[in-house]
Amino acid sequence: MIAAAPNELLVDEYELAMADSYLAEGKDSLPVAFELFARDLPPHRGYLVAAGLERAVEVLTELRFCDESLAYLERARNCSPELLERLATVEFTGRLDAGPAGTVVHAREPILRVEGDLLTCQLAETLLLNQVNFQTLIATKASRIVTAANGRPVVDFGFRRAHGADAGLLAARAAYIGGCVATATVAAGYLYGVPTTGTMAHSYILSFPTDVEAFVAFLQHHPDRSTLLIDTHDPLAGARAAIAASRETGIVPQAVRIDSGDLVELTCEVREVLDVGGLGETQIVCSGDLDEYRIADLLAAGAAIDGFGVGTALTTSNDAPALGGVYKLVEAGGRAVMKARGPKSNLPGRHQVFRGVEDDTIGLVDEDLPGRPLLEPVLEAGRRTGEAAPIEEVRERAAAELAALPERVRALRDPATLPPRLSPRLRALEEELR
Amino acid sequence: MIAAAPNELLVDEYELAMADSYLAEGKDSLPVAFELFARDLPPHRGYLVAAGLERAVEVLTELRFCDESLAYLERARNCSPELLERLATVEFTGRLDAGPAGTVVHAREPILRVEGDLLTCQLAETLLLNQVNFQTLIATKASRIVTAANGRPVVDFGFRRAHGADAGLLAARAAYIGGCVATATVAAGYLYGVPTTGTMAHSYILSFPTDVEAFVAFLQHHPDRSTLLIDTHDPLAGARAAIAASRETGIVPQAVRIDSGDLVELTCEVREVLDVGGLGETQIVCSGDLDEYRIADLLAAGAAIDGFGVGTALTTSNDAPALGGVYKLVEAGGRAVMKARGPKSNLPGRHQVFRGVEDDTIGLVDEDLPGRPLLEPVLEAGRRTGEAAPIEEVRERAAAELAALPERVRALRDPATLPPRLSPRLRALEEELR
Repeated sequence: MIAAAPNELLVDEYELAMADSYLAEGKDSLPVAFELFARDLPPHRGYLVAAGLERAVEVLTELRFCDESLAYLERARNCSPELLERLATVEFTGRLDAGPAGTVVHAREPILRVEGDLLTCQLAETLLLNQVNFQTLIATKASRIVTAANGRPVVDFGFRRAHGADAGLLAARAAYIGGCVATATVAAGYLYGVPTTGTMAHSYILSFPTDVEAFVAFLQHHPDRSTLLIDTHDPLAGARAAIAASRETGIVPQAVRIDSGDLVELTCEVREVLDVGGLGETQIVCSGDLDEYRIADLLAAGAAIDGFGVGTALTTSNDAPALGGVYKLVEAGGRAVMKARGPKSNLPGRHQVFRGVEDDTIGLVDEDLPGRPLLEPVLEAGRRTGEAAPIEEVRERAAAELAALPERVRALRDPATLPPRLSPRLRALEEELR
Repeated sequence: MIAAAPNELLVDEYELAMADSYLAEGKDSLPVAFELFARDLPPHRGYLVAAGLERAVEVLTELRFCDESLAYLERARNCSPELLERLATVEFTGRLDAGPAGTVVHAREPILRVEGDLLTCQLAETLLLNQVNFQTLIATKASRIVTAANGRPVVDFGFRRAHGADAGLLAARAAYIGGCVATATVAAGYLYGVPTTGTMAHSYILSFPTDVEAFVAFLQHHPDRSTLLIDTHDPLAGARAAIAASRETGIVPQAVRIDSGDLVELTCEVREVLDVGGLGETQIVCSGDLDEYRIADLLAAGAAIDGFGVGTALTTSNDAPALGGVYKLVEAGGRAVMKARGPKSNLPGRHQVFRGVEDDTIGLVDEDLPGRPLLEPVLEAGRRTGEAAPIEEVRERAAAELAALPERVRALRDPATLPPRLSPRLRALEEELR
């Protein structure tokens, strides 16, 4: 169900056009450095949770042109014969530095730096951006929804609204890194070890004559993990049906789910019905077009909700559906470079981020400044310097980094940001090149 | 680079939980019908361009549980032993009806209808929604951007901001269906035959000492297809550099590209510089955070633009990043069913859409009403009734259907919609079940 394109063709055509010229000009092996960073944070974001590093490593280490790809490029006349010959030898033998996955980053701070030959580093641009932009976007969105839920568990329900199957899987993984407790997507358990969970659909209820019959059957077949969807016909009648089904089976449902309606009023009424009916232990979970803003409003208004299922908003980061990360040449042949004009300019040279107690400083790689350096070598001479971190470790790192942020930076609306300082040497270099 | 999950695990866990109960209750083989439709159109959409049908066919025809998937489900304890045994025999032997890909559809109109046994049809829910929602979303967004460009070519530049690699590929394909002329994503040419095109990045310019040297090299190596990026340092100086490079090489650049700045003023100035410098044939293409609204505004303000590259907005449908399509049980055991409560109710029974000259009518499948019936059999007894339409045919159908829409429905902001009528028999059935 997912398109089987060779990774090496997941490039923008301009990368091939440029490669052709680099080769013809004898610049294909020029040593260069690119950095991947977000110029600005998306609206309402005070920080980013970096994710997608594992895929970035794969982009680089697996970059080879197979015969089939080369044959296609020849047919498509995208490349000169000389370039086709050169592409057949492409391999990333350079260096990758990055902050550990799950790290909080701010605008302008490099999430990763790629060093190698010009032709190869340029070819990796599109896929590196594609992978890191999306996973960072969703880990960040998830962290906001988890913040809004204020200790209540949040489950990813979003696969059906994700941008294709791969997007749904990556989102489930990134959501877990960002603090969700589970996903409804079974394959995310299979591939990534993300905990999975599930309830029932309205169609399940409708396939039975009554709510009570549907609930009795479900409780009997899932005595240990039963969340009953009570709003198919009417949530209060559904809550009473859950009580009746519980009495008939002797099984206490773990939770009831409400997917529509005025959730403040309904959850309070359902809570009372359940408590009076002897289901005081049964939790109430809500779903249905929720996001961090709505969750915060519901809880502030006193809704009786114990957990949330969040779909569309989480999986698509609906209020900011793209992260505008860019991949910019910062050094070529040992010379620091920058695009000088306007808001799209970048910082010249290779950088390190020094994380301070209050804010960060971006300096040049050979500077030794106060604070914890964020970027560490991940690949050297094209090879991994260590093992990839297990997902649980990445998730814990994200949680710890988020907890360390000032509350004003984690605000859901109009948060404060922590723009990094620039070291005096970097400022001087920027001035000189401008 | 794309997650290799077996399709049969691309399900929400609740589908397995429901399947367990269906099986235990002896309802797994109950004949049912589900319909996939959008209850409402996303903001600012007056219509949808249906896409993703080919993938929907694959979802159904390829649905099997391989040994590895069954072993995972056993380990994960998602299913009873009885269900595992039943899943091993799952195969879609039912019927699929759909409008042809590229068809314009309206709110509440079924994009497809699936008929078969309850267990199998329920298992297909998540992946069908995932595929059809996204591709329809992007084909629709593309058609809006193409409308705004008013005859000027639009190229997809969005892979780097897409939600993973598969999303970028599907978006390139859907964008072409929606009217874009090409994509920058090479693999979309390889996989789907979408025309590809490319220019150069700022990093290309920065790897040369001057714009002129960068342009001379590019023109020499790409004499037939050269779009020169002129805004790395300054667009007017860049335009003069293009003229100088053209004089030096004797090659006329096909186009120049501007990716930043005040595009109304800059394009008019650049046009004048090019015309005076003898490059009257050289086109001006623009990119950089464009969408349908901005394109319409630029053209209305008199910008001298001959073509557009659109990235983020196109690939993520940024102003409406999800289509809320749903998959609802409409018939079970020969009995029409509906979720009765509130705004999430659906039309009961199996439907046909009759396309009239002014608007559509939704009736029951056995009605014979005026207008062209949209849904046609695509699978019967689990097998294709014919060949999949080539992408060019789908693209032409979309163009013809869009051209037939009233202009007020194609408006970019607050468009009119064409809500379908309901046949008297359908209205009576709805009333009866309510």
